[in-house]
Parts: sequence; structure tokens; C-alpha cells
Amino acid sequence: MELKEAVAKLKEMNRVMHAYNHAMGVMYYDIETAAPKNATGGFSDTMAALSEITYKLSVNEENFALLDFLTGHADELDEITRREVEEAQKGLKLLRSIPMDEYIEYQRVLSEASAVWHEAKVKSDYAMFEPHLKKLVEFARRFAAYAAPEKDPYDYWLNEFEEGFTQDVLDGYFEKIKAGLVPLIHKIGERPQLDNSFLHKTYPVWQQRKLSDFLMEVMGINRDDCAIGETEHPFTTGFNKHDLRITTHYYEQDLASSMYSVIHEGGHATYEMGNSDELWDSPLAGGASCGMHESQSRFYENLIGRSRAFIELVFPKIKETFPEQLEGVDAEAFYLAVNRAEPSLVRTEADELTYSLHVLVRYEIEKKLMHGELDTKDLPAEWNRLYKEYLGVDVPNDKEGCLQDSHWSGGSFGYFPSYSLGSAYGAQILAHMKKELDFDGLIARGEMGVITDWLRVHIHKYGMIKKPAELIRICCGEDFDPQYYIDYLTAKFSELYGL
Amino acid sequence: MELKEAVAKLKEMNRVMHAYNHAMGVMYYDIETAAPKNATGGFSDTMAALSEITYKLSVNEENFALLDFLTGHADELDEITRREVEEAQKGLKLLRSIPMDEYIEYQRVLSEASAVWHEAKVKSDYAMFEPHLKKLVEFARRFAAYAAPEKDPYDYWLNEFEEGFTQDVLDGYFEKIKAGLVPLIHKIGERPQLDNSFLHKTYPVWQQRKLSDFLMEVMGINRDDCAIGETEHPFTTGFNKHDLRITTHYYEQDLASSMYSVIHEGGHATYEMGNSDELWDSPLAGGASCGMHESQSRFYENLIGRSRAFIELVFPKIKETFPEQLEGVDAEAFYLAVNRAEPSLVRTEADELTYSLHVLVRYEIEKKLMHGELDTKDLPAEWNRLYKEYLGVDVPNDKEGCLQDSHWSGGSFGYFPSYSLGSAYGAQILAHMKKELDFDGLIARGEMGVITDWLRVHIHKYGMIKKPAELIRICCGEDFDPQYYIDYLTAKFSELYGL
Repeated sequence: MELKEAVAKLKEMNRVMHAYNHAMGVMYYDIETAAPKNATGGFSDTMAALSEITYKLSVNEENFALLDFLTGHADELDEITRREVEEAQKGLKLLRSIPMDEYIEYQRVLSEASAVWHEAKVKSDYAMFEPHLKKLVEFARRFAAYAAPEKDPYDYWLNEFEEGFTQDVLDGYFEKIKAGLVPLIHKIGERPQLDNSFLHKTYPVWQQRKLSDFLMEVMGINRDDCAIGETEHPFTTGFNKHDLRITTHYYEQDLASSMYSVIHEGGHATYEMGNSDELWDSPLAGGASCGMHESQSRFYENLIGRSRAFIELVFPKIKETFPEQLEGVDAEAFYLAVNRAEPSLVRTEADELTYSLHVLVRYEIEKKLMHGELDTKDLPAEWNRLYKEYLGVDVPNDKEGCLQDSHWSGGSFGYFPSYSLGSAYGAQILAHMKKELDFDGLIARGEMGVITDWLRVHIHKYGMIKKPAELIRICCGEDFDPQYYIDYLTAKFSELYGL
Repeated sequence: MELKEAVAKLKEMNRVMHAYNHAMGVMYYDIETAAPKNATGGFSDTMAALSEITYKLSVNEENFALLDFLTGHADELDEITRREVEEAQKGLKLLRSIPMDEYIEYQRVLSEASAVWHEAKVKSDYAMFEPHLKKLVEFARRFAAYAAPEKDPYDYWLNEFEEGFTQDVLDGYFEKIKAGLVPLIHKIGERPQLDNSFLHKTYPVWQQRKLSDFLMEVMGINRDDCAIGETEHPFTTGFNKHDLRITTHYYEQDLASSMYSVIHEGGHATYEMGNSDELWDSPLAGGASCGMHESQSRFYENLIGRSRAFIELVFPKIKETFPEQLEGVDAEAFYLAVNRAEPSLVRTEADELTYSLHVLVRYEIEKKLMHGELDTKDLPAEWNRLYKEYLGVDVPNDKEGCLQDSHWSGGSFGYFPSYSLGSAYGAQILAHMKKELDFDGLIARGEMGVITDWLRVHIHKYGMIKKPAELIRICCGEDFDPQYYIDYLTAKFSELYGL
């Protein structure tokens, strides 16, 4: 095979896979935002048919040979093509090592588990989900052994989601988090609580929709590139840098919920809109990793969106929209309210300070599951014990406990740490950005574009070309260091609670 | 080849094609209702890629051999399979004759033309759309020559949309329409006009949205099977009988516009929801023809929706929703208002009486375009001349003139006559339905379900199994006869205007 011909084959493959992924992505967005209820049957049939087609397109000897050939000539490839080959190999490594019949059985177990989890969560009935989870844990351990027999299974999965991270690194990371944050949270618990009661007055949905438009405008999001939909759980999806979709959920009695989900998802969208043009239909479009993607969404949500400067900027418009609900409230009171910290049960609703402890609970449990040190039967007890230990809360039921997240029912073990790493990346990036930019001043003047441009140049434009560790070095001129995150939280919340 | 094996291959092909069509259909719905503006570039690329794949799947020697084999054994096939083969052959007749490159280029031109038309219409700028239209006209003429070199190109396209119809038949049909309706319209023009001014007060969009929900409920549409979206130009699309999508456009100053577009599109959706279950993922799902589809949408819109009985049924709710705007208006006044007949500019806003004259304008123009007797550059002038001649109105701009419809930008020439034929089918069907059902009584009592069931048994359940001419015979026990349509309009509007 000629190298040039092989590269052309790869690019053609990318183009075709991009089309399938685009179509399936739009179908997924549609089923979540627009389709009628009974569309799910036809949706599943079509997604299954298209998944089968794309599976056959990529998992076949001809494609393996193409990728192996290109891997053998990696030094002769340009950076983008080399990384495309590397990512394709990474994606196929597991699939190539699993016996076909086991993979089919796994797909069957996955779809069952997902359906059962939905029902079990509604009924708060862990027992009905447990046998399915048990199977998924066994699959995850076995698959790790197939793909990387030399590795600890949890290290294998952690590396899949955030390249370069192992339990060694994360044990140290979470020890630092625990040592830094648990005493801080304890001290805050003894201080008078910040008032956020006015956020729970009645805020009509149609007015919240207008506020979303305003927030996206403030963020500098070009609405011609990014639409907003409404779903039960907010998410972001994108098909190319000119077609991003974020979603939110409006609660009449909770102004901050949709406000911060819009800013969070807007951050995800901003990342992908900032990809360089050459990644248009490349599999390297998007974000460097789950953690790096979260670093950007949480950068906008927390580091910008929950800053005093941002609240001072947007509060006049918020008050103008809701004059009755916010009578007697000023920007400072609003700033305090959206930063109220309080140990709670549900990760997705957790505040900025306690968030990483929710992740820690999951990390501890996943580690034990992957090592066969925790029987899935004993999972709720362990979950509840850890929530008591780290967050000081009693878990009243499994719906708000170990059944709350969809990740395990989807076969994902090792994803959760990314959520916490994202916040830590963000704090480190912020510390270095501040050496170059007048961060608070820019926000106060509504010049968010300068901040976004900085992030675009240092992170967004690269998509998946650079790995997260490299991006941290590009941004910060040093390796990842979680101390920035702890320092940031300590300073912010000490001031907020007058410690 | 074994017959059984060949049938299995056909069914597998249908399953896969259904998946592709479903995905592309959702992408189309999404780009019209939800996608951000700049999504069109990626949308075009993906639609082109998927079209190429489906083209290759169906346009290849193996598939031709399969279909030819099955055609040779047509007598041994069940009715559905036989019709599937027949339709596949009909669909491939054109594709088998178009060179692949030209087909792909056509798909690309189509997506571009559609995007440009949207912008051109907003700007009322025909010149920006004209080069795209010119290309599409050339494609249509060339494609007709490929598929049926022995036929007049317009006859070819007319037959594609409504089997059995030619210019000979339609020239006669439109002559009858002209002879029957133009004098009637003239007489009505001399009578005092019906008052519909209150329909143009201010009707807030969010309340009109609620009215749409009510109207769909009255029609008996199961909302779990049918969603409603908002687009510039209302349309209906469906992916299976449990996943229909209708769209509407709300105008604050025009209550009747969205009201009747919802009923019209709801009629299209009702047709497909009434398909028999065995057509689930068959290519025979949907409607028998464009004209038969229009017969159903216009049946609900006009024969039911603009009847005195229907207005008496729904008016109390409308008045309850808009008490201020409708102060002093009663059901009879509302009935008169929604039936006001007046030559106008926009087909989709046209009244029941003058509607077919709008179609006639397009018929005349398409005939000339397909014969190369009209340059696309001269189209606006010709359009305006015909509107003056048939409807007596002056066209002030191309937005309300020749840019108003999306059909030509979608490459459809020969579709418009179906709209008029649909009305004529409907009037004939109504005349025969009335022999069996107490039509007005059922509507007055809100028992629309009985009417829909009758239509389901006689028309909807068949999907494409029967052709339009057969369906007319099933419903009416006789061949198509446009006289019913002229009689219906003459009786209704003579009474309305006291002739």
C-alpha cells in the first residue's frame, strides 16, 4: 500500500463516519428534545441498524490493516493524521481484543441494564438493578484484562477516559482534596448560612427562556452556531463547530438551575466552537478529554459565572426581568445566594465547594468494584457510609443515593474522576490566565470575548490534537497541580463565609 | 435464486433503507425546526454523504437483478410485496438512468438551493435565487429525458406525482375549474364582502400555541404519536405511524393562519397514523400519492374545519381563549369570517374557493419551464402576469410572489396540481361518505373519530398499497369526477354570499 493512498482511505473513512455520527447525533438530540413519546420504538430500530453498519465499517480486518500500516508509518504523517490514527487505534484496541460473541452479549446486557436502571431509579429499587450492575462490573473487569492484561483494571479504565491518569495519581489527588476541603466544609457548616430563598420564588418559564438568550449573548455565543433546546437533563452535543446544541431544564421554582446549566453547557459549546477549521469533519474535533471538556464548562459556570464581577455585570438585567421576585435583592445578595455551599445528596445539584467529594465517593466505590473488593449487593451500604463520612449527610433512599447517576448502567467505570479533574484543571488555568489578563476587569466590562479568545488559542483550537496533560503545559507552562484548585476554593469560600 | 430468499433480501433492504430514510428525515426536520442557522453547511455535507450511500445501496446491478427477478415472479408475491417491488422499480427507473456523479451533484445543488431560497424569500430577492432555480429546472428536464425519453418532460413529472395524470387530462381539468369557478368568483366580487377583520386583531403566540393543542385534540390526534414544531412554511413529515411531525407558523395578527395550517397538517398526519401496522417499516407506508395526501389534509382543513358544524363545535373554546379579541363575535360570524373568499397573493393563505386558481398559475409556469419556453429570469414577470389574469391581483414583490413556495427550491416540478386534485378528490369522497354517515351531525357532536375511522378503512390503512384511482373507486364506487368539487364550491359559496 502507498502511504498517500492509505491516508486518503483514512480521510474517506473519517468523512463517512462523520456523516453517520452526525445523523445519529441529530436523531439523539431530536428524540430528547422534539420527538413524540411513541417515537422511541422506531428510534431504537434505526439507531440499532445504523450502529450495526458503523460497527461493521470500522471493525474489520481491512480497516485494522490500514490502521496498522499507518501506525507503522506514524513518523511520516502530519500531526493531525498521526493523532487520528492513534485515536482510531485506541478506540479499536478494546474491540479488537473482545471475542465477537462476548461483545454481542455485552451489548444486550447494556441495553437491558439501561432500561432496568431507568425503572429502578423511579422506584428507588436497587435490588432490581443489582444483578445487571454485577454483570456490567464483570464485563468491565474482563474487558480490561483483554485489552491490557498487564494493567490493573481500574487503571486501564481511568486511562481510557483521561489519558495519563492512574490510581497512584488520583489517590494523591483525592487525598489533597480531602485534606484541603473537608475541614473547610466543616468550618463553613458552623457559620451562618447564606440566604438563597429568593431564588426559589416563582420564575415563569417564558421569562427564564429570555434570560437564557441574554446569558448566551453575554458569553459571546454566536446563536447562528448554537441552538438551545429543553430536556429533562441538560446536555451539550455538537456535530461540527458551526452546529452546537445545548439544552436546559426550566424549573419555575429554581432560577439558578437553568441559569447555571445554560452557562455550563454554553461552556462546553464554546469549547467546540473554538476548534480550528481544519478539524471540521475530523474525529479530532471536540475536546481533548472528558476532564478537559468539563474544565471549560465549569470554567464558565463557576470561575466566570459565579464570580462577583459576573454577577455585577448581569444582575441589572436579571432584576429588570424579575423585578417583583427580586425586590430588595442587590447584586451582592445575589452573588452570595448563587454561591451558597451545603453538603447535599445529588452530585449534579451540588455546589462548587462540595462537588469533588461527590466524585470521591464514586471513585472509592469504582476502585473497589474493579478490584473485586466490593460485592454489588453491598454497594448501597458503602455508598451511604461514604456520603456520611465525606459529606456528613444521611442518604434516605437509593434514588437519591447510588441509583442517581446513569454512568454505571451505561457500563462506564472510571469516568467520574474527570468531573473533578475538570474543576482542578480550570483553577490552574485561571491562575495562569490571570498573569496575562485582567480577568475580573474583563468580566466586569462584559469583555468575555478576550477570555474566550485566550482559551481558544491555548485549548479550544486544538480539539483532540493535544492530550490534556500537554494542554495544561501549553496553558500553564507546568504540569498539572491540584493545589491551585484547593487554594481557589479556600480563598473564595473563606471570604464568602467570613472565615 | 430462490423466491423466498429474494423476498428476504428485499425485506432486509427495506429495513436498512428505512433506517437511512428515517435518519435523513429527522435531519431534515431538525434543520427546519431546531438547528442553528450555520448548521446548513454540515447538514448539506452529511445529507450528500448519506444520499451517496443509499444511492449505492439501491442503484447497483445486484439490486436491479433482485427487483427484476421479483418482477418476473410478481404473480407469486403477496399484494404488499408485489407493490413494494413495483414502487421500487418505479423509484429506480429514474435513478437507473441518472449518472452517479450527476445525482450527487444534484443533491448538493438541492441543499444549497434550499438554503438560498430561505434567505432570498426573507430578502424578497429573486435574483439571488434565480441561478439555483435555473440549475434545478435544467436537472428536472434532463432527468425526465433520462427516465422517459419518449415522454414530454412535464408529463413525466406529473405522472411521478400523480400516476395517470398528463397535461391532456389536466388541461381539461383546469378548463373545467376555470369555467366553473371564475364566473362564480366574479359574481361574489360584486356582493358585499364578509367581515373577517376581527381575525386580524392581536392574538399572542403563546395562546395560539394552546389553541393548536386544542385543535389537535378535537381532531383526535394522539400527541404521543405526533409532535408539533414551528417553521417558516408549515409541513408534515413522518418516520413511521407512531412518529409524525407537523409544523405551523404563528402570526400575531392572523388567528386563522396557524389554526388552519394545524388542521391541514394534522390531516396529513392523520392519514399516516392510520396506515395498517403491517406497513410499519415498509416503503409503502405513507400516502397513495401527493394528491391523495392533499385530499386528506384539505378534507380536514376545509370540508370539516371550515364547515358550520365544526365552527359551532370549537368556537366556544376559541372565544374562551380570546375573549377580548372576539367580543361581540358569535359562531356564525366566525364561520363567515373563515370562509371569506377573496383573490389574494399567497397560495397557502388562499381561501377554499380561489385556491385552485393559485395552482393553475403554477401549472402554467411549470409547463413552460419544462418545455424551455420560459427563462427563469423572466419568471417573476410571468408569475405576476398570470396572477393578474386569473386572480385580478397585482403582485407587489417576489416574497409574496414567485418566491413564496418551497417546492421549486426542493426540485419539485409537477407537484402543484396535486394540491388542486386533492380538493377535488375530497369533494367526491365527501359526497359518498354522506350517503353512509351523518357528517354534519358527527362533527357537531365532536365525534370526529367516526369520520376518521371511515377514512382509515377506505383510504388511510392502505398506505401506498392501492393507487389513487383505485382508492377513489373503493370510496366512491366510481371513477374520479371533478364535477363534485365544482358543485360543492358553488353550493357552499352561493349560500355564503347569498347568490
